[in-house]
Amino acid sequence: MIETPYLLFLGDAPDGLAAKVAQGIKDWRPEYALGQFRMDGCKADMKLPDMTLEEAYAKGARTLVIGVANRGGVISEKWKQVLREALEVGFDLASGLHNLLRDEADLVSTAKANGRTLHDVRVPSVKYPIANGEKRTGKRCLAVGTDCSVGKMYTALAMDKEMRARGMKSSFRATGQTGILITGEGVPLDAVIADFMAGSIEWLTPDNDADHWDLIEGQGSLFHVSYSGVTMALVHGGQPDALILCHEPTRDHMRGLPGYKLPTLEALRDVALELAKVANPACKVVGISVNTQHMSEEEAKTYLAEVESRMGLPAVDPFRHGAGRLVDALAAI
Amino acid sequence: MIETPYLLFLGDAPDGLAAKVAQGIKDWRPEYALGQFRMDGCKADMKLPDMTLEEAYAKGARTLVIGVANRGGVISEKWKQVLREALEVGFDLASGLHNLLRDEADLVSTAKANGRTLHDVRVPSVKYPIANGEKRTGKRCLAVGTDCSVGKMYTALAMDKEMRARGMKSSFRATGQTGILITGEGVPLDAVIADFMAGSIEWLTPDNDADHWDLIEGQGSLFHVSYSGVTMALVHGGQPDALILCHEPTRDHMRGLPGYKLPTLEALRDVALELAKVANPACKVVGISVNTQHMSEEEAKTYLAEVESRMGLPAVDPFRHGAGRLVDALAAI
Repeated sequence: MIETPYLLFLGDAPDGLAAKVAQGIKDWRPEYALGQFRMDGCKADMKLPDMTLEEAYAKGARTLVIGVANRGGVISEKWKQVLREALEVGFDLASGLHNLLRDEADLVSTAKANGRTLHDVRVPSVKYPIANGEKRTGKRCLAVGTDCSVGKMYTALAMDKEMRARGMKSSFRATGQTGILITGEGVPLDAVIADFMAGSIEWLTPDNDADHWDLIEGQGSLFHVSYSGVTMALVHGGQPDALILCHEPTRDHMRGLPGYKLPTLEALRDVALELAKVANPACKVVGISVNTQHMSEEEAKTYLAEVESRMGLPAVDPFRHGAGRLVDALAAI
Repeated sequence: MIETPYLLFLGDAPDGLAAKVAQGIKDWRPEYALGQFRMDGCKADMKLPDMTLEEAYAKGARTLVIGVANRGGVISEKWKQVLREALEVGFDLASGLHNLLRDEADLVSTAKANGRTLHDVRVPSVKYPIANGEKRTGKRCLAVGTDCSVGKMYTALAMDKEMRARGMKSSFRATGQTGILITGEGVPLDAVIADFMAGSIEWLTPDNDADHWDLIEGQGSLFHVSYSGVTMALVHGGQPDALILCHEPTRDHMRGLPGYKLPTLEALRDVALELAKVANPACKVVGISVNTQHMSEEEAKTYLAEVESRMGLPAVDPFRHGAGRLVDALAAI
């Protein structure tokens, strides 16, 4: 578990897109985002107070989160000067970069000398069990997609936010690097050893109050041949009571797989539900989340109405229209 | 790749069952099984020549394979005396034990001093790619089960043997520890990092002659909540042209999961085929392999006839009746 609140390190980000992680934290956990730290030449801006390390620490920030992708897979010496100083000031560091903080000898020794922790969220830090399939108390909702990167994380975060606003009990359960950095905890599922995947999700979504919902971040797709095994482990380890189907209607092939068409929402519904019922016979498909970012408002409305009538389920773009109707559908279970 | 032929180390096996790995090698790759090495008190016997390390080496054996499970997860000092001596004589060591050879300092130093290799087949030794889903030449058959441990490995090995006997081109592709020790190579799929599972199976079953069949060892079950993600990766990474359904009809629940009923063969057929068609639209279910070990000959015959007529597919127990009809079904594709 990563200590909050955070100071968001934007480094020398060439643009706002490179700072996707920082943006996610600011959007979904603004209470964790105390301030931002920008180096010379930084082109990203989260509209947060710019702070020195000392200022942020004095205001209570405890972890410097690397909120920006690095270029060329190398943690530059410029960055490292800041990171070492942060450790000396008293910060832990948290990163989802491919190249690990723990592989940088100077960061390791500085962290050790100052009693600080390096969180590489790409690497599991827990010895997960093998899944036992036992029924757990509380309720769980899983977002499954027709493809990778169709908005599953966004959908779960938006539903969680709406549920909290309504005073419902809910937890977003992160299963990827960005989600873990946003919430400070979770399972980096794509880095878990095969035998323990489903068990890691059981561990992530334990017994809870009968009226508590886990909103589980989906990964991959049952129809994406590179990552379907990871998705399968979520469907069975997550033991969902409710599935949300996620879709991006303007793609002409699966992400990274030219020649592979996206499945229909009907095919996703049927396969995902059949498999989910193995772990939870009461599971239902309750709604559809469509990423309409590449459609005009009019196109989006028409498309959503068509899907809604065809599938007999609420179909919304939570980014455009809010997650309210998806939460209504959950609340009705 | 493990050097052959082998000397099979039976240690102080308390019974024949403990020497399952040695039995598998002797049954399926008798040409690799040059002899056996038994310690005082060994109750297992593969009916192979008993040899000293020096004798076996002189006859050409190059790897001492640990063909027996150890007790209590500890490699005993008694065993290690033999293993160290084997390294000094010139053998590599190969093991599928949970506790690794490489974690034993004395074995590591003796191997190093003698230029020998320690093969821990539970641990991947290859950096596998992420699956790209590209169509490969040659043909592939995957055994999928209603449950774990229903005879998928046996089925694939029996089909491979029959195909070789007929002069067909085939390769058994091992995906588990026993299979890897039997054939000397393969992917320890349950130990692969989630993101690379499907890619490891693409790597294992590369482009081949148009009339060559890979017989891929199945793992887990799409309906087994602990391991279904591993199975899913086989279905998509294996890109099978043909599926064989495997079943053990006398179980009252899924292995290790009290309360979970086995799916019907129809449910397995429908879900597995729908998912397999994502990677290979031409995939077909061609036959059914039933493990009838807990049925009388009469019961088995009646059951197989019933399944065959109900499913419209050849249904056989390859152990009792040979894999001939399953191979006929493959050959007819």
